[in-house]
Amino acid sequence: MRTHAANLKAQVEAVLKAWGMNEENARITAERLEYADLHGIDSHGIALLPLYARLRAEGRINFQATVHVVRTSAATALVDADGGLGHPAGTRAMLLAIEKAKAGGIGAAAVRKSNHFGAGGAYATLAAEAGLVGMAFSAAWDAAIVPTYGAEPRFGTNPLAITAPAGDGQSFCFDIATSTIAIGKLRLARFHGKRLEPGWALDRHGAITTDPEVALASPRLTPLGGTPQLGSHKGYCLAAAVELLSTMLPGAWYCATREARHPGERQFNVGHFFIAIDPDAFRSPGEFEADLQDMMAALRATPPAVPGQAVLAPGDLEARAFADRAANGVNLPPGLIAELREIARSSGAAWLLDAQ
Amino acid sequence: MRTHAANLKAQVEAVLKAWGMNEENARITAERLEYADLHGIDSHGIALLPLYARLRAEGRINFQATVHVVRTSAATALVDADGGLGHPAGTRAMLLAIEKAKAGGIGAAAVRKSNHFGAGGAYATLAAEAGLVGMAFSAAWDAAIVPTYGAEPRFGTNPLAITAPAGDGQSFCFDIATSTIAIGKLRLARFHGKRLEPGWALDRHGAITTDPEVALASPRLTPLGGTPQLGSHKGYCLAAAVELLSTMLPGAWYCATREARHPGERQFNVGHFFIAIDPDAFRSPGEFEADLQDMMAALRATPPAVPGQAVLAPGDLEARAFADRAANGVNLPPGLIAELREIARSSGAAWLLDAQ
Repeated sequence: MRTHAANLKAQVEAVLKAWGMNEENARITAERLEYADLHGIDSHGIALLPLYARLRAEGRINFQATVHVVRTSAATALVDADGGLGHPAGTRAMLLAIEKAKAGGIGAAAVRKSNHFGAGGAYATLAAEAGLVGMAFSAAWDAAIVPTYGAEPRFGTNPLAITAPAGDGQSFCFDIATSTIAIGKLRLARFHGKRLEPGWALDRHGAITTDPEVALASPRLTPLGGTPQLGSHKGYCLAAAVELLSTMLPGAWYCATREARHPGERQFNVGHFFIAIDPDAFRSPGEFEADLQDMMAALRATPPAVPGQAVLAPGDLEARAFADRAANGVNLPPGLIAELREIARSSGAAWLLDAQ
Repeated sequence: MRTHAANLKAQVEAVLKAWGMNEENARITAERLEYADLHGIDSHGIALLPLYARLRAEGRINFQATVHVVRTSAATALVDADGGLGHPAGTRAMLLAIEKAKAGGIGAAAVRKSNHFGAGGAYATLAAEAGLVGMAFSAAWDAAIVPTYGAEPRFGTNPLAITAPAGDGQSFCFDIATSTIAIGKLRLARFHGKRLEPGWALDRHGAITTDPEVALASPRLTPLGGTPQLGSHKGYCLAAAVELLSTMLPGAWYCATREARHPGERQFNVGHFFIAIDPDAFRSPGEFEADLQDMMAALRATPPAVPGQAVLAPGDLEARAFADRAANGVNLPPGLIAELREIARSSGAAWLLDAQ
């Protein structure tokens, strides 16, 4: 069953408002989730509502949160999410970074006391839409990435997303965790009864495991690179850099000492960081966009290693998904629809996904 | 033979001045190379002089270059390297980014018409020394990294370096190519008669090769991740982002279309990009540095996967090398000394490395 993205957005808004979120924050949050659903990032769209329902039930999220700007400088801002979901504060921060970049060439904003913010690309893309280069970084509360040579995780999956506007209207964009793979891939392997690729995950002693049961028992993901031989120290450094920007600049919690420093606290202090850069501060109008379009075309024209398996430019998969889904709607699996129906029912929100 | 770093620096300065570089630019260039020699980055210190001698012989570098600032905004600057080595322009740009970050919280500077600039960490560290987070990005002229699913290289090794000051005076720092490995590792494998790790390099059809001869014939490095199964599309995206920042913002050449767009040109227009961020724009003085020290200590305390193989924090290797080399000098291999002696002789510079 295909559902129009506008319906998904309306359903998310209805549930969030039923949970006590104000009108504006619910709209903004639904927009960030809609971005993911429209661009093929299925794990970070409306499929996040069950997670948010669980966090709400655990008292981990403040649905009456009021985002406020704590301090600003000429080119930076610090935003406090007041313990709420990260989408309203993240959006406010990215928009502030954009505003400051338009004024002075580059701007940055950090967010503290936040929570899950969905897909980083949903924020970075706001910069591309405004004609700027955008970057979004986020920490995560669940320890997942194990430092090279270690046996215990010390970072969340610490994603980073970068976008920029190309001359043909398509965006350069990517949104990646700094782990080799997402935890979802472990679940998928278990579901299909497959072994894991060596280098995806570690057992509790820090040794490579190819058994999805072992890997899922207590997730220990490798940093991008997978193994020391293939440069996992680089992924480790990148995960640490995302942690530093997303937690130490805003004054949020970093994963490595969270349990020791903040035992038993129900609401986590999650952090994000955003940068916007105005190409017009460096180039004449249009030059950057033309060059980016030219490079993306050259990347697509790279001779393929396997005939028929074309090289993609960063953002092509998202653009393809958008072209399809904006026209034809989004396909939700029946299991998710059942979960969403139960969430709508128990929250008291209207059920909007049958009326296609 | 151990040589004091000050002697290496003096030797570099003497050669650069003999090649026509002015006093200030020679000093700055020698300082950036000295950073690498003191911090264990042997490939990017005085060992670069033979490369620079070759580029000079080929007419690829302007040793009479005058760095100039093309334009500035409140938080950004564009610097023109005038076809010279990248060190003077890169240093000027990083110092401008620092100055602007101190004024407005974040600053950025781009460099065009540059050339090889040594180690990115040598620039990023200037920010950490000033109490800021520093980032350095650079494009490179030699195509090396092959996009995921491709058979031809479309980027240089596109390094990025990030540094930040920790409370105990040690810096968080890393300086990594966005390829899985450096080309030097291929040469080392050939030298020792070893096979390559699968995932390091591709043959000319884009298939994984473990033969160093095949890999060196026309270097095709994988993006960080190594294989599609281990997330090489993430390394590909990172390499593309470094390209975008380092070439499209300043208006330098990007690798993917260089040969088509600029055939037969002797001097390449290499670009770099730098960002500095002031933690004090977000936190109270000292908080960021204390948190970073705390996290780095927690990373080092991660239980190791293999007893005795400790987990390092980003920057530990560099700090260890510095402690040793600042006290005891730098060990140069005899082959390099012979090359340097010949460079000094033919340039007319004094030979300063015997007088320990």
